[in-house]
Amino acid sequence: MPDRLSTTLSALADPTRRAILARLATGEATVKELAAPYDMSLAAVSKHLKVLEQAGLISRGKEAQWRPCKLEAGPMRDVAGWLENYRKFWEESLDQLEVYLAELQKGDPQGSKN
Amino acid sequence: MPDRLSTTLSALADPTRRAILARLATGEATVKELAAPYDMSLAAVSKHLKVLEQAGLISRGKEAQWRPCKLEAGPMRDVAGWLENYRKFWEESLDQLEVYLAELQKGDPQGSKN
Repeated sequence: MPDRLSTTLSALADPTRRAILARLATGEATVKELAAPYDMSLAAVSKHLKVLEQAGLISRGKEAQWRPCKLEAGPMRDVAGWLENYRKFWEESLDQLEVYLAELQKGDPQGSKN
Repeated sequence: MPDRLSTTLSALADPTRRAILARLATGEATVKELAAPYDMSLAAVSKHLKVLEQAGLISRGKEAQWRPCKLEAGPMRDVAGWLENYRKFWEESLDQLEVYLAELQKGDPQGSKN
Protein backbone atom coordinates (compact mmCIF):
# COMPACT_ATOMS: atom_id res chain seq x y z
CA MET A 1 0.00 0.00 0.00
CA PRO A 2 1.52 3.34 -0.95
CA ASP A 3 1.57 6.05 1.72
CA ARG A 4 -1.13 8.71 1.62
CA LEU A 5 1.01 11.50 0.14
CA SER A 6 2.23 9.19 -2.65
CA THR A 7 -1.37 8.17 -3.40
CA THR A 8 -2.44 11.83 -3.65
CA LEU A 9 0.53 12.86 -5.82
CA SER A 10 0.04 9.87 -8.08
CA ALA A 11 -3.69 10.64 -8.51
CA LEU A 12 -2.81 14.25 -9.41
CA ALA A 13 -0.11 13.19 -11.92
CA ASP A 14 -2.57 12.95 -14.81
CA PRO A 15 -3.85 15.87 -16.92
CA THR A 16 -7.35 14.40 -17.36
CA ARG A 17 -7.75 13.89 -13.61
CA ARG A 18 -6.55 17.46 -12.97
CA ALA A 19 -9.06 18.71 -15.58
CA ILE A 20 -11.82 16.79 -13.77
CA LEU A 21 -10.82 18.46 -10.48
CA ALA A 22 -10.81 21.89 -12.20
CA ARG A 23 -14.34 21.20 -13.46
CA LEU A 24 -15.48 20.10 -9.98
CA ALA A 25 -14.04 23.33 -8.53
CA THR A 26 -16.92 25.06 -10.35
CA GLY A 27 -19.52 22.74 -8.73
CA GLU A 28 -20.70 19.14 -8.42
CA ALA A 29 -21.10 17.11 -11.63
CA THR A 30 -22.24 13.65 -12.77
CA VAL A 31 -20.01 11.19 -14.63
CA LYS A 32 -21.89 12.04 -17.83
CA GLU A 33 -21.29 15.77 -17.36
CA LEU A 34 -17.61 15.14 -16.64
CA ALA A 35 -17.22 12.98 -19.76
CA ALA A 36 -18.89 15.51 -22.08
CA PRO A 37 -15.85 17.75 -22.85
CA TYR A 38 -13.61 14.76 -23.60
CA ASP A 39 -13.59 12.21 -26.36
CA MET A 40 -13.75 9.55 -23.66
CA SER A 41 -16.05 6.69 -22.75
CA LEU A 42 -17.98 6.83 -19.50
CA ALA A 43 -15.97 3.77 -18.46
CA ALA A 44 -12.68 5.63 -18.93
CA VAL A 45 -13.95 8.62 -16.96
CA SER A 46 -15.26 6.28 -14.24
CA LYS A 47 -11.78 4.76 -13.95
CA HIS A 48 -10.25 8.20 -13.38
CA LEU A 49 -12.97 9.00 -10.83
CA LYS A 50 -12.18 5.78 -8.96
CA VAL A 51 -8.51 6.85 -8.66
CA LEU A 52 -9.56 10.30 -7.42
CA GLU A 53 -12.06 8.81 -4.97
CA GLN A 54 -9.50 6.35 -3.56
CA ALA A 55 -7.13 9.28 -3.01
CA GLY A 56 -9.91 11.14 -1.16
CA LEU A 57 -9.82 13.96 -3.75
CA ILE A 58 -13.51 13.56 -4.61
CA SER A 59 -16.56 12.15 -2.88
CA ARG A 60 -19.68 10.82 -4.56
CA GLY A 61 -23.37 11.17 -3.75
CA LYS A 62 -25.37 8.17 -2.55
CA GLU A 63 -28.12 8.08 -5.20
CA ALA A 64 -27.47 5.04 -7.45
CA GLN A 65 -28.37 6.79 -10.73
CA TRP A 66 -27.15 10.29 -10.13
CA ARG A 67 -24.12 10.03 -7.78
CA PRO A 68 -22.73 13.54 -8.32
CA CYS A 69 -19.00 14.00 -7.79
CA LYS A 70 -17.74 16.63 -5.37
CA LEU A 71 -14.24 18.05 -4.98
CA GLU A 72 -12.54 17.21 -1.65
CA ALA A 73 -9.44 19.40 -1.33
CA GLY A 74 -8.12 18.05 2.00
CA PRO A 75 -5.41 15.84 0.45
CA MET A 76 -4.20 18.83 -1.62
CA ARG A 77 -3.65 20.74 1.62
CA ASP A 78 -1.27 17.98 2.73
CA VAL A 79 0.69 18.27 -0.53
CA ALA A 80 0.87 22.06 -0.14
CA GLY A 81 2.03 21.62 3.47
CA TRP A 82 4.77 19.22 2.40
CA LEU A 83 5.90 21.61 -0.38
CA GLU A 84 6.27 24.45 2.15
CA ASN A 85 9.46 22.69 3.37
CA TYR A 86 11.00 23.57 0.00
CA ARG A 87 9.70 27.10 -0.52
CA LYS A 88 12.97 28.74 0.56
CA PHE A 89 14.82 26.81 -2.17
CA TRP A 90 12.65 28.01 -5.03
CA GLU A 91 12.56 31.54 -3.64
CA GLU A 92 16.38 31.51 -3.47
CA SER A 93 16.62 30.52 -7.14
CA LEU A 94 14.15 33.28 -8.08
CA ASP A 95 16.29 35.78 -6.13
CA GLN A 96 19.39 34.61 -8.01
CA LEU A 97 17.53 35.00 -11.32
CA GLU A 98 16.54 38.55 -10.39
CA VAL A 99 20.14 39.46 -9.57
CA TYR A 100 21.23 37.99 -12.90
CA LEU A 101 18.53 39.90 -14.83
CA ALA A 102 19.48 43.12 -13.06
CA GLU A 103 23.11 42.55 -14.12
CA LEU A 104 21.95 41.90 -17.71
CA GLN A 105 20.06 45.18 -17.73
CA LYS A 106 23.23 46.95 -16.65
CA GLY A 107 24.94 45.30 -19.65
CA ASP A 108 27.20 43.39 -17.28
CA PRO A 109 26.01 39.77 -17.24
CA GLN A 110 29.11 38.42 -15.42
CA GLY A 111 28.93 40.96 -12.62
CA SER A 112 32.07 42.94 -11.77
CA LYS A 113 34.42 40.00 -12.26
CA ASN A 114 35.01 40.67 -16.01
CA MET B 1 5.27 12.50 -23.47
CA PRO B 2 3.49 13.51 -20.26
CA ASP B 3 3.12 17.23 -19.58
CA ARG B 4 5.60 18.89 -17.23
CA LEU B 5 3.30 19.09 -14.20
CA SER B 6 2.39 15.38 -14.52
CA THR B 7 6.09 14.49 -14.77
CA THR B 8 6.85 16.46 -11.59
CA LEU B 9 3.91 15.02 -9.62
CA SER B 10 4.75 11.50 -10.74
CA ALA B 11 8.40 11.92 -9.70
CA LEU B 12 7.27 13.16 -6.27
CA ALA B 13 4.78 10.28 -5.82
CA ASP B 14 7.37 7.98 -4.24
CA PRO B 15 8.49 8.03 -0.60
CA THR B 16 12.12 7.12 -1.40
CA ARG B 17 12.41 9.92 -3.95
CA ARG B 18 10.89 12.37 -1.45
CA ALA B 19 13.39 11.16 1.19
CA ILE B 20 16.22 11.78 -1.30
CA LEU B 21 14.96 15.34 -1.87
CA ALA B 22 14.73 15.88 1.91
CA ARG B 23 18.36 14.74 2.23
CA LEU B 24 19.43 17.07 -0.61
CA ALA B 25 17.67 19.97 1.12
CA THR B 26 20.48 19.71 3.72
CA GLY B 27 23.20 19.93 1.02
CA GLU B 28 24.65 18.22 -2.06
CA ALA B 29 25.34 14.48 -1.87
CA THR B 30 26.79 11.68 -3.98
CA VAL B 31 24.87 8.56 -5.03
CA LYS B 32 26.82 6.59 -2.41
CA GLU B 33 25.89 9.06 0.34
CA LEU B 34 22.25 8.98 -0.74
CA ALA B 35 22.17 5.16 -0.76
CA ALA B 36 23.73 4.83 2.72
CA PRO B 37 20.56 5.23 4.88
CA TYR B 38 18.58 2.74 2.76
CA ASP B 39 18.88 -0.96 2.27
CA MET B 40 19.15 -0.27 -1.47
CA SER B 41 21.65 -0.96 -4.21
CA LEU B 42 23.43 1.94 -5.87
CA ALA B 43 21.63 0.88 -9.08
CA ALA B 44 18.21 1.28 -7.43
CA VAL B 45 19.14 4.71 -6.06
CA SER B 46 20.53 5.71 -9.48
CA LYS B 47 17.19 4.78 -11.04
CA HIS B 48 15.35 7.10 -8.60
CA LEU B 49 17.89 9.86 -9.30
CA LYS B 50 17.27 9.50 -13.04
CA VAL B 51 13.52 10.04 -12.51
CA LEU B 52 14.23 13.11 -10.34
CA GLU B 53 16.75 14.47 -12.86
CA GLN B 54 14.35 14.02 -15.80
CA ALA B 55 11.71 15.93 -13.82
CA GLY B 56 14.25 18.73 -13.23
CA LEU B 57 14.04 18.21 -9.45
CA ILE B 58 17.78 17.58 -9.11
CA SER B 59 20.86 18.44 -11.14
CA ARG B 60 24.16 16.58 -11.14
CA GLY B 61 27.77 17.75 -11.14
CA LYS B 62 29.96 17.16 -14.20
CA GLU B 63 32.82 15.18 -12.62
CA ALA B 64 32.54 11.57 -13.80
CA GLN B 65 33.42 9.96 -10.46
CA TRP B 66 31.89 12.36 -8.01
CA ARG B 67 28.79 13.87 -9.71
CA PRO B 68 27.14 15.31 -6.60
CA CYS B 69 23.34 15.69 -6.70
CA LYS B 70 21.78 19.07 -5.99
CA LEU B 71 18.16 19.90 -5.22
CA GLU B 72 16.40 22.01 -7.87
CA ALA B 73 13.12 23.24 -6.42
CA GLY B 74 11.77 25.09 -9.48
CA PRO B 75 9.31 22.34 -10.51
CA MET B 76 7.95 22.26 -6.93
CA ARG B 77 7.11 25.95 -7.25
CA ASP B 78 4.91 25.08 -10.26
CA VAL B 79 3.08 22.42 -8.24
CA ALA B 80 2.57 24.89 -5.38
CA GLY B 81 1.29 27.49 -7.86
CA TRP B 82 -1.20 25.01 -9.32
CA LEU B 83 -2.38 24.01 -5.82
CA GLU B 84 -3.10 27.65 -4.97
CA ASN B 85 -6.19 27.39 -7.23
CA TYR B 86 -7.65 25.00 -4.67
CA ARG B 87 -6.61 26.69 -1.41
CA LYS B 88 -10.05 28.23 -0.83
CA PHE B 89 -11.61 24.75 -0.92
CA TRP B 90 -9.41 23.26 1.80
CA GLU B 91 -9.65 26.43 3.90
CA GLU B 92 -13.47 26.21 3.66
CA SER B 93 -13.44 22.63 4.96
CA LEU B 94 -11.12 23.65 7.82
CA ASP B 95 -13.54 26.46 8.71
CA GLN B 96 -16.41 23.96 8.79
CA LEU B 97 -14.36 21.65 11.02
CA GLU B 98 -13.65 24.53 13.40
CA VAL B 99 -17.35 25.36 13.66
CA TYR B 100 -18.08 21.69 14.37
CA LEU B 101 -15.36 21.48 17.04
CA ALA B 102 -16.66 24.67 18.69
CA GLU B 103 -20.13 23.09 18.83
CA LEU B 104 -18.62 19.93 20.36
CA GLN B 105 -16.91 21.99 23.08
CA LYS B 106 -20.24 23.53 23.93
CA GLY B 107 -21.52 19.96 24.41
CA ASP B 108 -23.89 20.43 21.51
CA PRO B 109 -22.44 18.45 18.61
CA GLN B 110 -25.52 18.76 16.38
CA GLY B 111 -25.80 22.52 16.79
CA SER B 112 -29.16 23.93 17.92
CA LYS B 113 -31.22 21.38 15.97
CA ASN B 114 -31.28 18.73 18.77
